[in-house]
Amino acid sequence: MTTDEVKLAFDKLGGLLPAVAQDAVSGRVLMLAYMNEEAFRLTLATGEAHYFSRSRQSLWRKGGTSGHVQKVKAVYLDCDADAVLLKVEQVGGAACHTGYESCFYRRWTGGGWETEGTPVFDPEEVYTRG
Amino acid sequence: MTTDEVKLAFDKLGGLLPAVAQDAVSGRVLMLAYMNEEAFRLTLATGEAHYFSRSRQSLWRKGGTSGHVQKVKAVYLDCDADAVLLKVEQVGGAACHTGYESCFYRRWTGGGWETEGTPVFDPEEVYTRG
Repeated sequence: MTTDEVKLAFDKLGGLLPAVAQDAVSGRVLMLAYMNEEAFRLTLATGEAHYFSRSRQSLWRKGGTSGHVQKVKAVYLDCDADAVLLKVEQVGGAACHTGYESCFYRRWTGGGWETEGTPVFDPEEVYTRG
Repeated sequence: MTTDEVKLAFDKLGGLLPAVAQDAVSGRVLMLAYMNEEAFRLTLATGEAHYFSRSRQSLWRKGGTSGHVQKVKAVYLDCDADAVLLKVEQVGGAACHTGYESCFYRRWTGGGWETEGTPVFDPEEVYTRG
């Protein structure tokens, strides 16, 4: 085991790195989002996943609205230092804004995409609360 | 369960979608790479993972050089149709060109990145073969 100094390759995607969140217990891949340097730094500093929203062009604390934060159990970096993997505890049991546990809830059937499973929560209820 | 017509959002990253490969049995996240439309189409058509190499700017049949192909067991699409998850059987037992099972072999320790595990193969041997 060695500890290396590594420069993360934020430059490859205009300041962003793709980040995969995986449930630390079940191993299910929950979502893929992007981090800028600030989001990455805040993720390490707070132990909660932060991303950069490309649609809103702003820092995004995952669960800030829904309460469904991701408690970070481990952070991994890939061989090219241009992608990150988070092992997380997903509060609320669902990562997706649609209410599904995983954002990857559609599976290719050969002729189209089939939705697997059922939502854990009702988005209309979660996102209008308070 | 419903089958939907979905248009994949290749436009968000200049013609590319990020694709996560996960071991279908162990659940380990193996790598993150990118697909253009041709790579995606070939992945579905052949049942073997194809990507688009950003460094070489060309189609990349995973394992074409090393023999370490990825047999695709399932393909998932995320909520925004801008990321793909492949569940694969990783031939050769390692996805990473460095010889590690997963490209995500470095873990954040709080003060730096620590390499976890040991390589499954010797890259110098694999990539000079033939």
